[in-house]
Amino acid sequence: MTTYRRKRLSAQEYIEGVISGNRTILSQAITLIESKLTEDEALAEEVLEAILPYTGKSIRVGITGVPGVGKSTFIERFGLHLIDSGQSLAVLAIDPSSQRSKGSILGDKTRMEQLSRHPKAYVRPSASGSSLGGVAHKTRESALLCEAAGFTWILVETVGVGQSETAVHDMVDFFLLLMLAGAGDELQGIKKGIMEMADMIAITKSDQGNEKAAKQAAQEYRNALHLFPMNENLWQPKVSTCSALNGMGMEEIYQTIGAFQTHTEGNGSFQKRRREQNLTWFKTGVVMRMERFIQTNKSSQDLMHHLEEKVKSNQISALKATRLLFDELMNTIS
Amino acid sequence: MTTYRRKRLSAQEYIEGVISGNRTILSQAITLIESKLTEDEALAEEVLEAILPYTGKSIRVGITGVPGVGKSTFIERFGLHLIDSGQSLAVLAIDPSSQRSKGSILGDKTRMEQLSRHPKAYVRPSASGSSLGGVAHKTRESALLCEAAGFTWILVETVGVGQSETAVHDMVDFFLLLMLAGAGDELQGIKKGIMEMADMIAITKSDQGNEKAAKQAAQEYRNALHLFPMNENLWQPKVSTCSALNGMGMEEIYQTIGAFQTHTEGNGSFQKRRREQNLTWFKTGVVMRMERFIQTNKSSQDLMHHLEEKVKSNQISALKATRLLFDELMNTIS
Repeated sequence: MTTYRRKRLSAQEYIEGVISGNRTILSQAITLIESKLTEDEALAEEVLEAILPYTGKSIRVGITGVPGVGKSTFIERFGLHLIDSGQSLAVLAIDPSSQRSKGSILGDKTRMEQLSRHPKAYVRPSASGSSLGGVAHKTRESALLCEAAGFTWILVETVGVGQSETAVHDMVDFFLLLMLAGAGDELQGIKKGIMEMADMIAITKSDQGNEKAAKQAAQEYRNALHLFPMNENLWQPKVSTCSALNGMGMEEIYQTIGAFQTHTEGNGSFQKRRREQNLTWFKTGVVMRMERFIQTNKSSQDLMHHLEEKVKSNQISALKATRLLFDELMNTIS
Repeated sequence: MTTYRRKRLSAQEYIEGVISGNRTILSQAITLIESKLTEDEALAEEVLEAILPYTGKSIRVGITGVPGVGKSTFIERFGLHLIDSGQSLAVLAIDPSSQRSKGSILGDKTRMEQLSRHPKAYVRPSASGSSLGGVAHKTRESALLCEAAGFTWILVETVGVGQSETAVHDMVDFFLLLMLAGAGDELQGIKKGIMEMADMIAITKSDQGNEKAAKQAAQEYRNALHLFPMNENLWQPKVSTCSALNGMGMEEIYQTIGAFQTHTEGNGSFQKRRREQNLTWFKTGVVMRMERFIQTNKSSQDLMHHLEEKVKSNQISALKATRLLFDELMNTIS
């Protein structure tokens, strides 16, 4: 933030810097995208438009799991494995709660110490924001900037307990769910529906005598997933075990994601999904813009809150509340 | 439709008719709600506001499953069981595809022959419409009218293969998934995520020698569901078998839904969920209204289609497309 406040670059400087892979400028460009200042909007849009032809060449992977599953250590180890395999990677996070929890994920770069210092990796601390939609949008656009900067893998981390998984699912090609062995209490932290979103489940911490339990958990999930419907991309979700401690299973995950890409590119679902994701983001963007418009107008915002309370307690119908709010909006604008 | 075209009642006639349980007027009121005519809007809103205090007293149950699972015969048998147990019921359907498929669900009332002639039941053929949002909204408001008319159970049927399950899930208290024995090809028709939404899975057609396979399938699903996280209402989804042919399992399903209601009312999640659902419908309504506004304005609509194509093919960013569409909307209104 300090860097950015000190100096705002020209559109050309941002664009050339990002495309040439200059990570200082990449960071500044992401800060520009994340800016809430109205005067930054046009510049952000210009930069994004210009780098668009350089995007789309990476594989985008979403990684989720409850706190305690070992996401950071997994990403550190898997990231280093990717680098060893000749790849480069950017790590981003969606965490709308980071303001409250003071950066629960990626807030502290030291949690991925080796990775964040590696020249082949770029670790961006979590974007903060009040609305999930806003944070998610910034993360998606940050991912585009990272692609333009030449990173071949984009990892998007999310906390696995809230609404953010759908947002991540809508911006990645492959969705990896990290789980602990033992389908006990910790399971209840995961939000419903996430399991079915997963293209792969990896049981973490399969080390230090925990290997057998991890293998057994993997087999149970494998059996369970067979009962569930496949995605329209006809990919049967895989289940594996891994250890961030000794690196076991990292190559298998790397190979599986490669096989997934070959499979989905082969049947056309890879590109189809990306096109649909673009469209989803456009539509979400229109809704967000509308919400922001309501929020910037005092009378609309007051009415919105008033109506929300009345609707919740069933004092007026959603139909009437909708009409009243819309009428107010039309009045405000015209 | 004919009745409605012949005669439009006054607000007072609709309201009194619905509240007194007059099913001819109930049908006319639903037709009014479903009307796409702008001049019907104010009347529909007035009727809905007036009946609102009479709503909320039923239990709302969503029922889904792929074609072939036997939804209609199940609903017929389960509905008669409800009536035998002293209940009354209204059956509605969400099926945005019904225009194309000429009423694939509930389109033909004869598919629930006994139920549709029973004085304690009301079966409403599927609403038609071009957008899922629109159809779902009408179904939700039709359900409110049915509640005001005194029905103690509202069953909302959906096809189980599209986007409509989320919409149904957002308007019911309890979500019942019908499945066939044998986790074979037929499974692939079900959309991902539906399984995890279910509060109960019932294996249908457990009769005529199929009982053992059904029991086994039920056990497999039971094992699988244990691996999955519970809802925040702390309800562990149940799995059972049933037969619409001989009525086996109907009492168990009836009892389970009762137990669910007791459980969720006990921990407060029943009312909490309904409040949240009200809010969701309000927000969805605002978005739909916005979409409709775009559609009624030629230049906005053209721009929208143009931008959708460009966004899909990555020619412009979602960010820019959003801004362009929003600017156009502001211009149109002011």
